[in-house]
Amino acid sequence: MHDMKCSEHPADRMCETIDRIGVPLCVGIDPVFDRLPMELQSQSPTEAFKIFCIGIIDAVKSHVVSVKFQSACFEREGAHGVALLGRLREYAHEHGLQVILDAKRGDIGISASHYAAAVTADGPCDWVTVNPYLGADGIEPFLDAGLGVFCLVRTSNPSGDCIQQQVLCDGRTVAESIADILHGLGEKYIGESGWSALGAVVGATKPDEALVLRERMPHGMFLMPGIGAQGATPEMVSKCFADGHGALATASRSVIYPQGTNDWQENISLAAKQLASELEINGVV
Amino acid sequence: MHDMKCSEHPADRMCETIDRIGVPLCVGIDPVFDRLPMELQSQSPTEAFKIFCIGIIDAVKSHVVSVKFQSACFEREGAHGVALLGRLREYAHEHGLQVILDAKRGDIGISASHYAAAVTADGPCDWVTVNPYLGADGIEPFLDAGLGVFCLVRTSNPSGDCIQQQVLCDGRTVAESIADILHGLGEKYIGESGWSALGAVVGATKPDEALVLRERMPHGMFLMPGIGAQGATPEMVSKCFADGHGALATASRSVIYPQGTNDWQENISLAAKQLASELEINGVV
Repeated sequence: MHDMKCSEHPADRMCETIDRIGVPLCVGIDPVFDRLPMELQSQSPTEAFKIFCIGIIDAVKSHVVSVKFQSACFEREGAHGVALLGRLREYAHEHGLQVILDAKRGDIGISASHYAAAVTADGPCDWVTVNPYLGADGIEPFLDAGLGVFCLVRTSNPSGDCIQQQVLCDGRTVAESIADILHGLGEKYIGESGWSALGAVVGATKPDEALVLRERMPHGMFLMPGIGAQGATPEMVSKCFADGHGALATASRSVIYPQGTNDWQENISLAAKQLASELEINGVV
Repeated sequence: MHDMKCSEHPADRMCETIDRIGVPLCVGIDPVFDRLPMELQSQSPTEAFKIFCIGIIDAVKSHVVSVKFQSACFEREGAHGVALLGRLREYAHEHGLQVILDAKRGDIGISASHYAAAVTADGPCDWVTVNPYLGADGIEPFLDAGLGVFCLVRTSNPSGDCIQQQVLCDGRTVAESIADILHGLGEKYIGESGWSALGAVVGATKPDEALVLRERMPHGMFLMPGIGAQGATPEMVSKCFADGHGALATASRSVIYPQGTNDWQENISLAAKQLASELEINGVV
């Protein structure tokens, strides 16, 4: 059980945790049954997921700031998976990790308020990923519920380009225009750390675009998935870390399904530790 | 129990149901505890939601083609709410209604496949709402799982404008560009009815924009929320119904929380019947 006092503001709490751990690293927890260690595949999916995810949290908790749960992996198991996800968020929280729920919700007005309530219905949550297509109506209810929000700006998948990289008549890309909207919205949610509770999801695989977006959102923390399996390196994201606090380098598959000759939990621990040291070498802190 | 034979293709099945009922009307089920009939508010939220939603389905099933469940309303009750939502989808399906899950999911690749599995994990689903910001990667896994998809194109909330109505350098709005992408993607999912399994969510409150989008997506069914409480009328949407099949007029609050002097279920039945007759008068069929 982790018992340090925590700030009320999501970005301040994230910065405090980064300072305590020393490296702004996040591990994505995306359990897929066929990829679990063989010894777990004799269990039911939810039981296997429980053992696997608790094993990951125990293995990485000394090396990382945060875990990001991919909601879809749990939702596909139905209500049992949703209940398990709540218990796992509780477990991660008790062990001092900042909990990110990667749910990419996006709805308007009262429905966004319902989603903001939903993300803490079964267990705690510090930050949630949100889709920007509905504008401020779809984002503010999460912030007003006290959550931190990483709003999708630039994703790493190939087909994201055909929407996010379209050029507006004023010369900006759609992604840049969304970064500008978020910058404006996020101003009233800036904490004592100087960082806002409204941040952005920016794929780590596009470092040049990330730097442009970094300038447009000087107070917005970046959640940067794609380190490892998707091909991004700690060096590629290093320029997005203003004073070591401005971004979370996020790796999923390369940490939770690592190569290695030890038992699965030790392989995961070593992969997280290795990535943390690569971030240190690249001067992000 | 409804036992008519149904087509395998989601759009064909929707058209068959429209032909059987006679009017392309959908009722949105958005249960909010404080707005439930007083007699239900002494129950727990999930018990009250169950009675209320079954009451709605029984009241409207002769007048409407489809029910659209707002996932957020159930998710805010946590895993119990998610389980209930699955049972209610089953109930609606058994009574011959096309089931739309208004979940507005949007994620990429394998995560989108997980979400496609999730929407039928606890009960059946015919169509699901999906967010376009991630491009085709976030849409096709739902179609490939056999689901119909209503992809967000133009929403009725005020803050949607600042993203969806931005003008690209080629003169199209962002919403129009997404309609064009969906038109291309949807071609390979056209059924015998001539309609695609890939449709669009287009707010009923913006009839002029809806008509422009209608031309850009000639094979895409439109889910058109906003009739009633949000101010749209059957007359406003009537031009989007090509041969009576091309769109679903969707009303939520005005039908499920109606004014009236009868018991709540009878008020709901009357509101649905009234709306169906207004659609007929406006010549959508």
